[in-house]
Amino acid sequence: MERNIIIEKASYVPVPKRGVELVERKGIGHPDSIIDGIMEEISRGLSREYIKEFGKILHHNVDKGQLCGGATEVEYGGGKFLKPIFFLLTGRATEEAEGKKIEVQHIARETARNYLKGVVRNLDVENDVEIDSRISGGSKDLVELFLRGPAVPFANDTSFGAGFAPFSDVEKIVLEIENYLNSPEYKQIHPEVGEDIKVMGLRQGDKIKVTVAIAFVSKYMSSLQEYAEKKAKVKEDIEKKVKEITPLDTEIFVNTADHEEKGSVYLTLTGTSAEMGDDGSVGRGNRVNGLITPFRSMTLEAAAGKNPVNHVGKIYSVLAHEMAFDIVREYPQVEDVSITLLSQIGKPIDQPKVASIVIVSDEYDTVKDKVHSLVDKQLENVTEITNKIVEGKAKVF
Amino acid sequence: MERNIIIEKASYVPVPKRGVELVERKGIGHPDSIIDGIMEEISRGLSREYIKEFGKILHHNVDKGQLCGGATEVEYGGGKFLKPIFFLLTGRATEEAEGKKIEVQHIARETARNYLKGVVRNLDVENDVEIDSRISGGSKDLVELFLRGPAVPFANDTSFGAGFAPFSDVEKIVLEIENYLNSPEYKQIHPEVGEDIKVMGLRQGDKIKVTVAIAFVSKYMSSLQEYAEKKAKVKEDIEKKVKEITPLDTEIFVNTADHEEKGSVYLTLTGTSAEMGDDGSVGRGNRVNGLITPFRSMTLEAAAGKNPVNHVGKIYSVLAHEMAFDIVREYPQVEDVSITLLSQIGKPIDQPKVASIVIVSDEYDTVKDKVHSLVDKQLENVTEITNKIVEGKAKVF
Amino acid sequence: MERNIIIEKASYVPVPKRGVELVERKGIGHPDSIIDGIMEEISRGLSREYIKEFGKILHHNVDKGQLCGGATEVEYGGGKFLKPIFFLLTGRATEEAEGKKIEVQHIARETARNYLKGVVRNLDVENDVEIDSRISGGSKDLVELFLRGPAVPFANDTSFGAGFAPFSDVEKIVLEIENYLNSPEYKQIHPEVGEDIKVMGLRQGDKIKVTVAIAFVSKYMSSLQEYAEKKAKVKEDIEKKVKEITPLDTEIFVNTADHEEKGSVYLTLTGTSAEMGDDGSVGRGNRVNGLITPFRSMTLEAAAGKNPVNHVGKIYSVLAHEMAFDIVREYPQVEDVSITLLSQIGKPIDQPKVASIVIVSDEYDTVKDKVHSLVDKQLENVTEITNKIVEGKAKVF
Amino acid sequence: MERNIIIEKASYVPVPKRGVELVERKGIGHPDSIIDGIMEEISRGLSREYIKEFGKILHHNVDKGQLCGGATEVEYGGGKFLKPIFFLLTGRATEEAEGKKIEVQHIARETARNYLKGVVRNLDVENDVEIDSRISGGSKDLVELFLRGPAVPFANDTSFGAGFAPFSDVEKIVLEIENYLNSPEYKQIHPEVGEDIKVMGLRQGDKIKVTVAIAFVSKYMSSLQEYAEKKAKVKEDIEKKVKEITPLDTEIFVNTADHEEKGSVYLTLTGTSAEMGDDGSVGRGNRVNGLITPFRSMTLEAAAGKNPVNHVGKIYSVLAHEMAFDIVREYPQVEDVSITLLSQIGKPIDQPKVASIVIVSDEYDTVKDKVHSLVDKQLENVTEITNKIVEGKAKVF
Repeated sequence: MERNIIIEKASYVPVPKRGVELVERKGIGHPDSIIDGIMEEISRGLSREYIKEFGKILHHNVDKGQLCGGATEVEYGGGKFLKPIFFLLTGRATEEAEGKKIEVQHIARETARNYLKGVVRNLDVENDVEIDSRISGGSKDLVELFLRGPAVPFANDTSFGAGFAPFSDVEKIVLEIENYLNSPEYKQIHPEVGEDIKVMGLRQGDKIKVTVAIAFVSKYMSSLQEYAEKKAKVKEDIEKKVKEITPLDTEIFVNTADHEEKGSVYLTLTGTSAEMGDDGSVGRGNRVNGLITPFRSMTLEAAAGKNPVNHVGKIYSVLAHEMAFDIVREYPQVEDVSITLLSQIGKPIDQPKVASIVIVSDEYDTVKDKVHSLVDKQLENVTEITNKIVEGKAKVF
Repeated sequence: MERNIIIEKASYVPVPKRGVELVERKGIGHPDSIIDGIMEEISRGLSREYIKEFGKILHHNVDKGQLCGGATEVEYGGGKFLKPIFFLLTGRATEEAEGKKIEVQHIARETARNYLKGVVRNLDVENDVEIDSRISGGSKDLVELFLRGPAVPFANDTSFGAGFAPFSDVEKIVLEIENYLNSPEYKQIHPEVGEDIKVMGLRQGDKIKVTVAIAFVSKYMSSLQEYAEKKAKVKEDIEKKVKEITPLDTEIFVNTADHEEKGSVYLTLTGTSAEMGDDGSVGRGNRVNGLITPFRSMTLEAAAGKNPVNHVGKIYSVLAHEMAFDIVREYPQVEDVSITLLSQIGKPIDQPKVASIVIVSDEYDTVKDKVHSLVDKQLENVTEITNKIVEGKAKVF
Repeated sequence: MERNIIIEKASYVPVPKRGVELVERKGIGHPDSIIDGIMEEISRGLSREYIKEFGKILHHNVDKGQLCGGATEVEYGGGKFLKPIFFLLTGRATEEAEGKKIEVQHIARETARNYLKGVVRNLDVENDVEIDSRISGGSKDLVELFLRGPAVPFANDTSFGAGFAPFSDVEKIVLEIENYLNSPEYKQIHPEVGEDIKVMGLRQGDKIKVTVAIAFVSKYMSSLQEYAEKKAKVKEDIEKKVKEITPLDTEIFVNTADHEEKGSVYLTLTGTSAEMGDDGSVGRGNRVNGLITPFRSMTLEAAAGKNPVNHVGKIYSVLAHEMAFDIVREYPQVEDVSITLLSQIGKPIDQPKVASIVIVSDEYDTVKDKVHSLVDKQLENVTEITNKIVEGKAKVF
Repeated sequence: MERNIIIEKASYVPVPKRGVELVERKGIGHPDSIIDGIMEEISRGLSREYIKEFGKILHHNVDKGQLCGGATEVEYGGGKFLKPIFFLLTGRATEEAEGKKIEVQHIARETARNYLKGVVRNLDVENDVEIDSRISGGSKDLVELFLRGPAVPFANDTSFGAGFAPFSDVEKIVLEIENYLNSPEYKQIHPEVGEDIKVMGLRQGDKIKVTVAIAFVSKYMSSLQEYAEKKAKVKEDIEKKVKEITPLDTEIFVNTADHEEKGSVYLTLTGTSAEMGDDGSVGRGNRVNGLITPFRSMTLEAAAGKNPVNHVGKIYSVLAHEMAFDIVREYPQVEDVSITLLSQIGKPIDQPKVASIVIVSDEYDTVKDKVHSLVDKQLENVTEITNKIVEGKAKVF
């Protein structure tokens, strides 16, 4: 059956050429990202277990979760944890199939704790974290569907995924600054830089302003002076980094809410604001491309935690993003591409109701058919997305 | 100080004229909407209490909450509740100011329960609902800020709000069908129609397909046959209603996942899918205009539960929406308007960093300045939004 | 099979004749009693439901539960509820049998709430109470055992029950004062008397001192003076009541921890100390005779919440108590009787491993055989205890 | 001031000479003991922290806690954890004094987890345990009282403690069997023996029957046959051990509920029945002497978790127990001694309202005064009990 792929020439001016552009990224230690990451890891952990036991990923959707911030008292050199960070894990996951039981709760807790240990280095996950898992078993019909479903699964819902490429300079800056500051290499040299890093980039005309909020870790600092020095050093590092990315005039601001003269600075025990009241919810942070881009088309779909087999909201989000980047890599004459994939519930996921591809290109007429083929081919291979997700090769936030 | 208002002529084709359009609304009884509604009501309840005690709304942001679905066994004529619906309420709210304590937990629970009773008529809120409130006290600095802050509050964050007008036919249909089916008048005649109504409208060219999912209430039905008859009747009613809204060819589908021949239909004890496993999170449902419109510019901002005083994410979302509709009402020559309001943290909220107004109009040159005045004036009066929200005159989902 | 009933002449001096005697009763509104009462009511509610659905009481033991006190701010005329009272309900109960499901959670919550409303008149159960039910399903083997077990059930465990009769004057005083102050008649006249009433009686020689702690209800009092007057009035009422019970010299103390001169008195919003921090656990309060009597033989067994079919800890406790009172009623020549019933796990409950009856009587030799018959007969009819419990005719705390 | 110490000659036959005697011990891995142990460890951990920060133990009473059993699927060689064991920790503890904050929650969780790891070797405490701590701050008045109270604290309540000595043979057997099977030495050789060991001893005349229930650990066994062999070996070990304690005819029964022919045996993943549904509550298990002795005088007082400074229920329980054993050690002519210490609220704890000492001795008249001195001296030194408890030298269950 022929796929309903519609290629159109854009009627709009691409974002990098518009007057205003706003981009945000919540780093991996931001409360919203933490809970996204936990639920996605649980999905991956469950998927691996299902494959081990049944040869197939079974039904699950653990795409709802809540982090309730704790309470700490912080001082230079250390601090105290007065109230633990609380996690509510929720969603559904197959607990039994073919007479075998799956220890869903054990996997959920183990995965969540291990993930947290990896992501927030300075959090004592054993003693300052409380987890309430309310993940419950799914319906029996769904067990069958996943065990003995068709090679190309049917869409579980009417949902859509959106993607675009390439990234503008602002988008690149925002994404790469966070990656850089949260890289193992940087942490080695600057352990005082916590994982909760929020980057916001605003372009007006050809001037960019980047605001970076960093939760510094108290135990690596002995005084306000040391804080100020380290913050200044980090700012310099960011400035150098940004020069590698864009020729545009870019100004960097770090922790603008600090009042150093009053001694009020962004100092934490653990490197995340989750320690002192900030809450987080699945799906309230970055989209699958790692960014929040209000001036681009976005879905509200929370990809994290959804099953990577038939949940089209997740699969199409990842696919649209990857497809867009494949197109501009393959066909540099495409200046900008926006993709929307709309599923039809109950139909094979390689047959979207519509795949809408909007292109900005001086060579639109010649590139059009090539893009069509590429999209068609990727839709044919849609199930590969599933493996990529399980293997951790496709990010979702 | 002059406001940074930028009026531009649109470079895009307005949505109603594009080839594909997709619109969704999650009705008031949908799990995401229920928790949105509860948190917003708590914000309003707290606001009223603060005003009563202190003459001002004090700091709070209760914009995170989670509904974990219960478990029921349903049969024609009734059913059983096997596991309660669980609510986690979270966020922060001032618990003490000027030596007076505020019974935040009591207000939260009372408001949540009363709201639920109003919104899900057939839910036994006392016995089939469990509430865990983890709303905690805010910082003392914020108490002062709210008690003795300036007449025009300072923006609490760098956030933005987006709005557009007018609604396309598909948008109108989607919104109005849900309002119609959930109106007291309709419930009087059709008590079997539950409050969890999800409407999705898809337009391709000039053909519209509307899919409506309705959780029917078991106690008003004695058999599968009665279910089928009542569903058919509701479908007819929708068809009539739609004819009043659009001349376009519109096809209506109700509960497409039903397999009547197998006896598998969308029957519930309470009228919401929250009873049997579906979870809900604040901010994952409708935007402040009541819709999810992936082809329009949207924010990820969850308005529900945020304080209506200085949380620009909420205030600018409501304001952008209302402003857009005021513009098209006042100036019918404006065919389409898109508004983005971007705040600057720490600056008065009547001074956005940028107010971007993009207009589609044949009379752009003549209407431009008028729109500018209107926007300027509304920004001047931005604090009126606060009252509207507290009085329930501005919807947020 | 003959029953192993051993009648012995006491080698001890009966408690009322000893030098020191100490007796305590925690009133129905005391945190320990509240949670005892809730779990017992849930057991009764489940029992009735099982009988309705299956004609038999099915397996359950909901004999563990925890009340975590709330927080209030109290003032004359009223007050505020700052943190709800939290209840953890736990234990096991059959959720499914013969293909029918039982809505255990619904019954548990409904019963708990209704019981609370009845017992703590001034508690807003809907808004100031949080319930977390972790009652879970029992094993499938036990379903069968209860559905198709023998007419006389087998003991579920090796447990014992203890009872004695008659009550000493101190025991009578302690029990009756609480009953009197918590009677509907007294509440009618003195609504300010809360349900949390703790009575402690100490006899040294022939002098009795009775200390009564009463949680007064703030909304029925406008001032410290009114508090003092009402407290004095209640003290007088108690003194009158006590004169009806004992000829011994008895001194009454009410709320000895009050410091009226500092304004520090026992004033509550609801009439129970559970509102402000006092916790309660099942089985930590009164024994089945309504008293705590350290100088008498007592079991640690918590009767409340246990199933009344085969849980010998509960059944033998109630039976030993009733048997003892039957003996002294029937045979007034018995001055004092102490009973211990020890079960053998897996054996019919009408065949205890040993029924030990220790008697103080001047006519021991003549009354011995009569008592033997009575005990034998009551053991034969042991299953009647089950009905008495379900019908609420046998108290358990 | 002279202490009110009353020495009396017993009017009763000592328990070892009566016809029937029943004694029970719940081993350290029994659900009731686990939660007793956790709350006691938290009290000790808090005490140490308070001493470190303030030089004094501050107010706390964390004597209520609940363990809700998990769910496992067990097979020879291993098994799965389907639902974690849940702990509710509750009570009150000073969170702030002299401007310093105490990280009560952190200490509670850390202590609880470390204790669990030590006591239940085969439990994966990180991933199969869920802790909800609802320990909350105490009143400010109490902070002052503890910081600046008198050298000999005032009794916090009217409570009593009971003790007796020496142990009968049955009591010795029951206590020592559990200690033996749970000793590190025995675990070294028999790691398959779990920590949940319940011992019940019944003496009728001079015949003793001891029933031992042991949760065996699945991973150390590969088959039913191996289970049977190991169980038989343990039984032999117990028999040998018992011969060292008593000359009386003693029969040993191990896991009498096993049906080996049906393959139904007492096999667990972790060595405690808490893994599969058995719940536990503070204060429902052993008294401070390590035993449950229904034929002896007992208090219902839960010692575990109470503060060791002014909580007379705890202090007098430990003191009465130690005093009784000191008396029989010092004066072997005392055959049996029973002690009851009754406090008077608000009075120094070295001045009980009454210390009642009942003695069985052929040399009563000569030993009487010596006992009086000993008791008087120990009361004088009552505050030493506090240190013993904090240092872990005085057991409470």
